[in-house]
Amino acid sequence: MELSHVNEKGEARMVNVSQKNVNERVAVASARVRMKKETIQMIATGQMPKGDVLATARIAGIMGAKQTDKLIPMCHNLPLDGVTVDLEMDEEHSLVHITATATCVWKTGVEMEALTAATVAALTLYDMCKAVDKGMVIEAVQLEKKTGGKSGTYTREK
Amino acid sequence: MELSHVNEKGEARMVNVSQKNVNERVAVASARVRMKKETIQMIATGQMPKGDVLATARIAGIMGAKQTDKLIPMCHNLPLDGVTVDLEMDEEHSLVHITATATCVWKTGVEMEALTAATVAALTLYDMCKAVDKGMVIEAVQLEKKTGGKSGTYTREK
Amino acid sequence: MELSHVNEKGEARMVNVSQKNVNERVAVASARVRMKKETIQMIATGQMPKGDVLATARIAGIMGAKQTDKLIPMCHNLPLDGVTVDLEMDEEHSLVHITATATCVWKTGVEMEALTAATVAALTLYDMCKAVDKGMVIEAVQLEKKTGGKSGTYTREK
Amino acid sequence: MELSHVNEKGEARMVNVSQKNVNERVAVASARVRMKKETIQMIATGQMPKGDVLATARIAGIMGAKQTDKLIPMCHNLPLDGVTVDLEMDEEHSLVHITATATCVWKTGVEMEALTAATVAALTLYDMCKAVDKGMVIEAVQLEKKTGGKSGTYTREK
Amino acid sequence: MELSHVNEKGEARMVNVSQKNVNERVAVASARVRMKKETIQMIATGQMPKGDVLATARIAGIMGAKQTDKLIPMCHNLPLDGVTVDLEMDEEHSLVHITATATCVWKTGVEMEALTAATVAALTLYDMCKAVDKGMVIEAVQLEKKTGGKSGTYTREK
Amino acid sequence: MELSHVNEKGEARMVNVSQKNVNERVAVASARVRMKKETIQMIATGQMPKGDVLATARIAGIMGAKQTDKLIPMCHNLPLDGVTVDLEMDEEHSLVHITATATCVWKTGVEMEALTAATVAALTLYDMCKAVDKGMVIEAVQLEKKTGGKSGTYTREK
Repeated sequence: MELSHVNEKGEARMVNVSQKNVNERVAVASARVRMKKETIQMIATGQMPKGDVLATARIAGIMGAKQTDKLIPMCHNLPLDGVTVDLEMDEEHSLVHITATATCVWKTGVEMEALTAATVAALTLYDMCKAVDKGMVIEAVQLEKKTGGKSGTYTREK
Repeated sequence: MELSHVNEKGEARMVNVSQKNVNERVAVASARVRMKKETIQMIATGQMPKGDVLATARIAGIMGAKQTDKLIPMCHNLPLDGVTVDLEMDEEHSLVHITATATCVWKTGVEMEALTAATVAALTLYDMCKAVDKGMVIEAVQLEKKTGGKSGTYTREK
Repeated sequence: MELSHVNEKGEARMVNVSQKNVNERVAVASARVRMKKETIQMIATGQMPKGDVLATARIAGIMGAKQTDKLIPMCHNLPLDGVTVDLEMDEEHSLVHITATATCVWKTGVEMEALTAATVAALTLYDMCKAVDKGMVIEAVQLEKKTGGKSGTYTREK
Repeated sequence: MELSHVNEKGEARMVNVSQKNVNERVAVASARVRMKKETIQMIATGQMPKGDVLATARIAGIMGAKQTDKLIPMCHNLPLDGVTVDLEMDEEHSLVHITATATCVWKTGVEMEALTAATVAALTLYDMCKAVDKGMVIEAVQLEKKTGGKSGTYTREK
Repeated sequence: MELSHVNEKGEARMVNVSQKNVNERVAVASARVRMKKETIQMIATGQMPKGDVLATARIAGIMGAKQTDKLIPMCHNLPLDGVTVDLEMDEEHSLVHITATATCVWKTGVEMEALTAATVAALTLYDMCKAVDKGMVIEAVQLEKKTGGKSGTYTREK
Repeated sequence: MELSHVNEKGEARMVNVSQKNVNERVAVASARVRMKKETIQMIATGQMPKGDVLATARIAGIMGAKQTDKLIPMCHNLPLDGVTVDLEMDEEHSLVHITATATCVWKTGVEMEALTAATVAALTLYDMCKAVDKGMVIEAVQLEKKTGGKSGTYTREK
């Protein structure tokens, strides 16, 4: 087992995938944003309409996925086939659950694209609500599942 | 208390700060990346030199801070005065602790810049090591402190 | 009267504004999108909820304003103080009216930022609805008003 | 008929095209810029050489096409095979006619790329001439033709 | 004397300039592109009009200056006041001489912006002509002069 | 022989490659940075650890390659398969030698990507060391070799 993004001298590189197979790759990542009870109520049912708060986070996450290779230095730029970002309000626990899915038919996986989408959506949620709750925490950004590619399927153990 | 990034109809807007004071603003954000014991050992002392793994994450975080307004829809573009990203290896707990600081003298705070720097550094660490450990988790992305601006100083309670 | 963005040889340049005054500048631009009656009804009241169609256009317009200097070669990069994009449905005439406002306190005007915001919102509306109406037309992209700067106030004649 | 860029709940998504066929797609878009007679004469034959005005608009349009997926939230990033932008001076009617063509061999169409190229060229023309004519209007941004893809050929009716 | 872009541990940082004075800063950089005699003749007087070759390089250089902080990791993003790029044909020596000037009134210098403008113009010239001359060489990219800032004026010795 | 990036009227275009074959293309470019003896010693063995200086240049070069089509107006955006940037210290001659390799399987060559990677690495090296040596010169940016594509293999003559 070895790190693929550094060479034998430990120097960073964008690893050559020209010989890898093109096949369908899907990755699902998740994150959650913990906030005060008052904050989630304000978004969900409170004094003001939910308005564009969730839409802004969703759209930012999708656009963020397309910026992945500009943010993560050794990531390949690749043509994404699809990206979705879902935000689910969990008022009982004062959490917003974010799930991002990225798909492509290409030579490398899209784990980073899914993780970036989830993260940018979470950061945007923070930004939209930080005027009332600076203590929000982004938790548990993680890969849930990936399929396709030589390393096969990965599913996070519960 | 109200959300500043949506108007009275709940529509997103980039809030007008033209009348706000220019003063020095500093924000400190943190995040941590949890990984397998084998992974952190591989980075720190293991079969291969630490090489560019931490440097790549640090540089990506700093560059990410400069992309904040392109990622977070309602963020102002502003001239950053300084950004640092520190990564500290905690081999005992198999964690890398990330601390990002952003500084500017401008009309709006730099919380999002610090949070984005910490997050992009964490995502890059994931990317650099994912060939050996897809289960890594980015945890506890949060604002530690901010100073400057009308809302004054914020310090996270421990 | 002369074009400021080319020199005496007709060569493009980013004109030097280092001696210009810093003051508040506001620009308002408008555009409209003409579509089929069925399309505007589908967005407004039709078979599906209005959902994110207008929100996506609004957010894209705001983010587009921040990309102005990357799109328009001789535009200065400047710190925007505020951007709003409003979309108004005119079902009677099958039009969506777009109004974008940009504000900054700086040495050059923000006409291009307002025009870019209006245009990107209009293009996004086209994109969101093109599956049902490829014939939509973006009309009358124009500056409505600007204030601030040496050339003073401009108001479009009706 | 339904909008493809929102799901059944009206939430924006980047629709999954992984199962769509790769084939050649061409799109042609047009726009025109209306200006004062003095302005077009200044560009065409007037006191100053035409210089870089048209070249800057042409180049900006081509570069703008490559930014389409960064501007239009639900657009796929795809490898463009070719982009041309033509500007034709119509001194009689004080108009500049812009025609943009985009080509790719991929799973989705390039209508937005052609429309973005035409629009950015038009905005750049405005920027290059706004020192002498703030009243210029960008009119009739529209798709003229597209070929390729499941929905087949579209030709605008005259 | 010490490197400012790394800390005492040798770690990269974007150095904090919040306490530095705002004053006018100008930097001039140069580069030259050496090509075959046939190539420069083709651009200058040859079988085809000079057309957009030089304009494209000039515009690319100006736009490149605005991307400097996205390319050079530790560079500050700052509002540029002006950028010019001049290209001079030296048919006798088969060289194109490039001179780029960047200006801002800010806390850090614009040496990197001027150097980036010159370099991107040179690379674009290479790109525009590489179909006929892959052996072109970009030579002598260097800072000619800078003024402003605590370190004062620098003028290259001849 | 003719320039491919301008049409018969000398107008810039992004040439249509939709009919060209997809095959593997590799390009190798080089550059060198000349500095004072004290500077290279400071990087290599001097008062401070080499730290992130070379890593920052290497990473910037790799990331720069992915920005090529945003910098060079007529360059196609294409999915890169791999990029490496090597920096070799030549203390005897006070030079750092940079070699960049870009690979893709696509319809156009990657010469510009390799040249951009080498150049951005060189500019970053300048930036990292300019506090102690503003006189550094970037020399001999050139294509060393390319393979693949209709024009076949090119190897620079020594």
